[in-house]
Amino acid sequence: MEFSISKMKEMIKSQGDKRVSEDSAEKLGNVLETFAGDVAEEAVAVAKENGRKTVRAEDIKEALR
Amino acid sequence: MEFSISKMKEMIKSQGDKRVSEDSAEKLGNVLETFAGDVAEEAVAVAKENGRKTVRAEDIKEALR
Repeated sequence: MEFSISKMKEMIKSQGDKRVSEDSAEKLGNVLETFAGDVAEEAVAVAKENGRKTVRAEDIKEALR
Repeated sequence: MEFSISKMKEMIKSQGDKRVSEDSAEKLGNVLETFAGDVAEEAVAVAKENGRKTVRAEDIKEALR
């Protein structure tokens, strides 16, 4: 997994005073990985459509529309 | 930022044979941070609604519905 369990736990803990299960941290990591992959894939496609060799911030923005 | 520029670059690069600008990696990191924070916040709220002290994987799933 790209995102560590400890970082995911930290992110959930920062949202309230709850305990955080290992599996919830793992689930959040998986969700983020899927989401990030989808956005990145779409951004690459946008850069390609525009005939560019480089992915720019605007491609990430466009990928989210 | 929670997510390193180098990790974000790597994720975008893995989706194709494009070069990846610094600002696109930063943008993706910001997007992920916002998304993760929103999901985590909602998951904490779900756990609270269900009277639990611990956030579980099911709360992450519920937060995405």
